[in-house]
Amino acid sequence: MMSDQNQDIKYLFEPQAVAVIGAARDPNKIGNIILHNILSGGYKGQVFPVNPQGGEILNLKTYRSIEEVNDPVDVASIVIPARFVFDAVQSCARKKVRYLTIISSGFSEIGNNEEEKRIVSYAQEHNMRVLGPNIFGIYSAKASLNATFGSSAITPGKVAIITQSGALGVAMIGKTGVENIGLSAIVSVGNKTDVDEADLLEYLVNDENTKIVLMYIEGVREGEKLIRAVKKATQKIPVMVIKSGRSERGAVAAASHTGSLAGSDEIFEAIMKQCGVLRAESVEEAFNWCKFLANAPSPSGENTVIITNGGGIGVMATDACEKYGVRLYDDPATLKEIFSPITPDFGSTKNPVDLTGQASSSHYHSALDEALRNNNIHSVIALYGETAVFDGENLSSMVEENDRKYKAGGKPLVFSIFGGEKVENCIRTLRKTNAAVYGDVYE
Amino acid sequence: MMSDQNQDIKYLFEPQAVAVIGAARDPNKIGNIILHNILSGGYKGQVFPVNPQGGEILNLKTYRSIEEVNDPVDVASIVIPARFVFDAVQSCARKKVRYLTIISSGFSEIGNNEEEKRIVSYAQEHNMRVLGPNIFGIYSAKASLNATFGSSAITPGKVAIITQSGALGVAMIGKTGVENIGLSAIVSVGNKTDVDEADLLEYLVNDENTKIVLMYIEGVREGEKLIRAVKKATQKIPVMVIKSGRSERGAVAAASHTGSLAGSDEIFEAIMKQCGVLRAESVEEAFNWCKFLANAPSPSGENTVIITNGGGIGVMATDACEKYGVRLYDDPATLKEIFSPITPDFGSTKNPVDLTGQASSSHYHSALDEALRNNNIHSVIALYGETAVFDGENLSSMVEENDRKYKAGGKPLVFSIFGGEKVENCIRTLRKTNAAVYGDVYE
Repeated sequence: MMSDQNQDIKYLFEPQAVAVIGAARDPNKIGNIILHNILSGGYKGQVFPVNPQGGEILNLKTYRSIEEVNDPVDVASIVIPARFVFDAVQSCARKKVRYLTIISSGFSEIGNNEEEKRIVSYAQEHNMRVLGPNIFGIYSAKASLNATFGSSAITPGKVAIITQSGALGVAMIGKTGVENIGLSAIVSVGNKTDVDEADLLEYLVNDENTKIVLMYIEGVREGEKLIRAVKKATQKIPVMVIKSGRSERGAVAAASHTGSLAGSDEIFEAIMKQCGVLRAESVEEAFNWCKFLANAPSPSGENTVIITNGGGIGVMATDACEKYGVRLYDDPATLKEIFSPITPDFGSTKNPVDLTGQASSSHYHSALDEALRNNNIHSVIALYGETAVFDGENLSSMVEENDRKYKAGGKPLVFSIFGGEKVENCIRTLRKTNAAVYGDVYE
Repeated sequence: MMSDQNQDIKYLFEPQAVAVIGAARDPNKIGNIILHNILSGGYKGQVFPVNPQGGEILNLKTYRSIEEVNDPVDVASIVIPARFVFDAVQSCARKKVRYLTIISSGFSEIGNNEEEKRIVSYAQEHNMRVLGPNIFGIYSAKASLNATFGSSAITPGKVAIITQSGALGVAMIGKTGVENIGLSAIVSVGNKTDVDEADLLEYLVNDENTKIVLMYIEGVREGEKLIRAVKKATQKIPVMVIKSGRSERGAVAAASHTGSLAGSDEIFEAIMKQCGVLRAESVEEAFNWCKFLANAPSPSGENTVIITNGGGIGVMATDACEKYGVRLYDDPATLKEIFSPITPDFGSTKNPVDLTGQASSSHYHSALDEALRNNNIHSVIALYGETAVFDGENLSSMVEENDRKYKAGGKPLVFSIFGGEKVENCIRTLRKTNAAVYGDVYE
């Protein structure tokens, strides 16, 4: 008997109770790290460690089998060797668990397709859904649930990440900490034998905390299902994709990594574009976008103005705008009216507006104030290349103050600053805030 | 009478004596900063400040006119308002100066073409060559000459930079300090009314200190001359170009910046490819390449191996290799023989070699030792994605030690490491060294 495939995905993100099958005493074991992360992450539901030896782990009563637990269990996190997983899944079925998150590897990614199929078929027949196998787990800010073996310190926020690579996901968790990117969720889908990106999107687009979704995809199984889900999602929030396995060799590597077929990159690219998805080439690029989109106000129109103190960086930013489809505001008369009082004769009031190398922080303040006030300008890109005359000690406060003013005024503002030690320190300091400041015009 | 256009470019890079016309007392003035940079940079030749007021500036006797100087002068740095420049050039002609570096702006970049033409024609008729106008000056490691108004602290090294944007060049000087990129020269060409990239390349390819040349170009005037020079240069050293003004809007911006026509990007791209030039999109990308190429040994062949602890980053690196034309070594039998003793069963000995998330620094050491020893492998890309089991405290030393071993062994090695705070600290520390370590697989 096939069961209902549309079991509410909410149970996965907001479970009332979770079990860890394979909870371990050894703090170096994944079965210990996950339990520790759940407990230290502030999860409010019930937690049931399961280990045939019983006793206590991390001060919690440990059950010899999940069937010994009296209360209902929504999610079982399974962290035992592949050959024991099927037995555990049978126990979960008897216990009427709703979601299995199978951390264990050793399935289709190494050619063990049969066992993976057997497990997921059995689970589906018994009304359970499977995340994984071959994953690092799931973090959900809504439930304060960190059921991953990544960092124990995840900052809650507005970015949701779905990743097909566990290792990359764990490293991403670390990187989000450094970049001060708050997460609403991070979920590893691994071999995605059942639950896939489409299922997760269904939840995330309706999650009021999620402002942008980033997906790392190596291969797609159910293309049409994904397209439907993505189309629906991009109507509500931005969706960004890093698709690897794009090159021929990369596709081969992806196949041996998560056992998935990468398919033609051109087709994928075209479909994603139609669905309104942003595509990033690297994690760095994706994170820069996520950070910006999670924090920036939405522009009320497409007119963008570049304000710079150097022609060269202005030209490069103009190239970058054309590459990414950013429309530059192009009304010379209005621009002249707005900016000529603050631009020297040898500068330019055309877009990019060039305040020239003589600009100090007060020139930037004036120009940015004017741009904020003017209703014809909908968003601003401010560039700064280090000069000898600029009052470097005011750089950070100038950036921060304008960032605050623009956010209050509901207008997007991005800073790109470039130069030596002082500029680097400024970027480092401001990365810890939510200010949109980057080190290169292409970021 | 037209004079000899091929006056030896050596006089510009290795002058015996320089004059600063427009030397100033006020430390905020460019005429003071340049003099200060020349003196504090350790220049061994003679320095003659010129200022109609005479007296002393920075403890040097100051001449009322360059014609009062008794010794020969190879280079005059001209730092006076545009309207006085022609008179100064006439004095220089009488003094038989060889090179004029005209810092002053206010010429063709603001439409003042006539005056620029008048100056350069006069200079050429009197056997002088002109760098600029509208430049920040020139730095030459060979002569310990920092005749720029950028940072006074430039590290001598192996990278030569030619830039058409002065402001960007000054910011680049700052950034090379942060990135620990040593410069053999940095030259601003500005409006390049006479001396252009081709002339400078002529010197740089024969300079034993220069290992790579980076050019920032907005527009080309004498295309065929440039093509000839670049073709010749790339036979000896790598040449990298950032060409801006690529987009339609960018081209317009470039025109109002240095008064140059950008031309079709497709044509430029095709020609540069034929000439063997590497093309970078952003300064960041260019600097990453420069740093690597200036320090890495040349590979003895094209066989590259990727060693990773995560499938996802391995797939992304494979994509990046295909994008940049890096050939991955593809002999499964040999790879298996080399790497199977150090790769777990659920890893992969195919290229990318996946040591799996269980890899510690000693696994990396073993794998990199094997790859260094094996003559079929000509270069190595090592990737590390943060994991809970890796001994993070050994990361920096592992990278450094292998960097040293590979340099000694004459094999290129690049590290790309990705993760949280520990990884970031490691990148920050190692940036100060010459180790090839980056934060993203696309760098």
